[in-house]
Amino acid sequence: KKQEPSKPIKVQELYVYEINERDRGSPAYLRLSQKEVNSLGDLVPFSNKLYSGDLNKRLGITAGLCVLIKHVPEKNGDRYEATYSFYFGDYGHLSVQGAYLTYEDTHLAVTGGSGIFEGVYGEVKLQQLVFPFKLFYTFYLKGIKDLPAELVVTPVTPTPSVEPSAAAKAAKTGAVIPNFTD
Amino acid sequence: KKQEPSKPIKVQELYVYEINERDRGSPAYLRLSQKEVNSLGDLVPFSNKLYSGDLNKRLGITAGLCVLIKHVPEKNGDRYEATYSFYFGDYGHLSVQGAYLTYEDTHLAVTGGSGIFEGVYGEVKLQQLVFPFKLFYTFYLKGIKDLPAELVVTPVTPTPSVEPSAAAKAAKTGAVIPNFTD
Amino acid sequence: KKQEPSKPIKVQELYVYEINERDRGSPAYLRLSQKEVNSLGDLVPFSNKLYSGDLNKRLGITAGLCVLIKHVPEKNGDRYEATYSFYFGDYGHLSVQGAYLTYEDTHLAVTGGSGIFEGVYGEVKLQQLVFPFKLFYTFYLKGIKDLPAELVVTPVTPTPSVEPSAAAKAAKTGAVIPNFTD
Repeated sequence: KKQEPSKPIKVQELYVYEINERDRGSPAYLRLSQKEVNSLGDLVPFSNKLYSGDLNKRLGITAGLCVLIKHVPEKNGDRYEATYSFYFGDYGHLSVQGAYLTYEDTHLAVTGGSGIFEGVYGEVKLQQLVFPFKLFYTFYLKGIKDLPAELVVTPVTPTPSVEPSAAAKAAKTGAVIPNFTD
Repeated sequence: KKQEPSKPIKVQELYVYEINERDRGSPAYLRLSQKEVNSLGDLVPFSNKLYSGDLNKRLGITAGLCVLIKHVPEKNGDRYEATYSFYFGDYGHLSVQGAYLTYEDTHLAVTGGSGIFEGVYGEVKLQQLVFPFKLFYTFYLKGIKDLPAELVVTPVTPTPSVEPSAAAKAAKTGAVIPNFTD
Repeated sequence: KKQEPSKPIKVQELYVYEINERDRGSPAYLRLSQKEVNSLGDLVPFSNKLYSGDLNKRLGITAGLCVLIKHVPEKNGDRYEATYSFYFGDYGHLSVQGAYLTYEDTHLAVTGGSGIFEGVYGEVKLQQLVFPFKLFYTFYLKGIKDLPAELVVTPVTPTPSVEPSAAAKAAKTGAVIPNFTD
């Protein structure tokens, strides 16, 4: 976190998929602007499922809030300010904040974490695959010890058609991390 | 915040009690889901009082937002995503983010701070004593100078019956920190 | 971010103006408390324009949420808990959290960032010039490389009458940063 010319800081990449399987009542689009087009004033609490980058393990959930900032008609999309966390069962969690644009990839700040992520900092790249149901994230994490082996996987190339393994989707033994968050 | 095999990082523990004395109109349960059972879509702004771990000093307040993520019927409770700050008068503040479960202890990320907490990182353990009125927190803080003596106290063992001292509750001189937040 | 007696940590100051030009539908005051006076329960999503400290360049926008914590009648003002980000076009963003008081300056935590602000920590001083339309911020940033020259400017002294240059206001070539956020 500081300039240290003599010692490069280790960056660990962590790949996860966030998938909305439409079984959590999410998102809750609160049209508090009372306008017909999405507008500042609308709030969107959400929570989706989280899978490992190789799609072989259910990790947990995401949870948080998107604040509608602006409808962008020329992109046929919206800008949100997002504050949310990624939960990894017994391993702990990562918190992030930044822009979520429905029409383009963004980078958010990693603002902290708990458990194995205690003391973390860095950023995360958000890639949208199927709006708003399937997203791929690449975390660039600093300040923490080596990630556990089951979180260090070769990711499935992100495309709109990717799906979690049947075992992970069914949260079968061997296809979940310890006490995966639900 | 980085791996430095040669130098252990100092961790300072800070103990505080958060108590809802029902005089701040908190929490404001906004049932925006419009459902009878707590559901995604509900939002809960809150602000409670903050006392030192020995319950002898009024420190300030908490302030922030809980986002209802999921009702958990088997635990007769709820999962919230919480983003809030702890205010310590002239000393500054600590910001945190993570899970608040009404039925079990959690760890949240310390995402930053101001004043004596500028540059802080780490995590905080949240223990619920009397839902939702009395909580005990143990902060594990890194990256900051030694805490001032009046914040370094031996905590009263957290139980449901703990109460702030009468002087602290009445915010008497000598039982408050400088310009305690209200 | 850690105690390192032997090496002082570099602090970079970054000055920006946040100006509400009343063309973004901001703020959206959501009176969810359903009370006549501002009360806990009210939420205020907002997004304003961001200019360089010398007022010669349009940088981007702010975006986020203020949670009304308490009306303070003796100050004829309000306490908010604020969670928001500052967007700087291609340079990335800074996220902050802390108190916004309508009647007095505050310091917020810098909780993270992206792009050139990846890995940032520190705090930011918020000064209100014209409530709620004109604010001046001094960021004290650590953990990042040297800021680009066009962000390192001598600020115009903050007063209620300051205005962005006509070129910056009109977002003319040469008066904006690369891909300034809008």
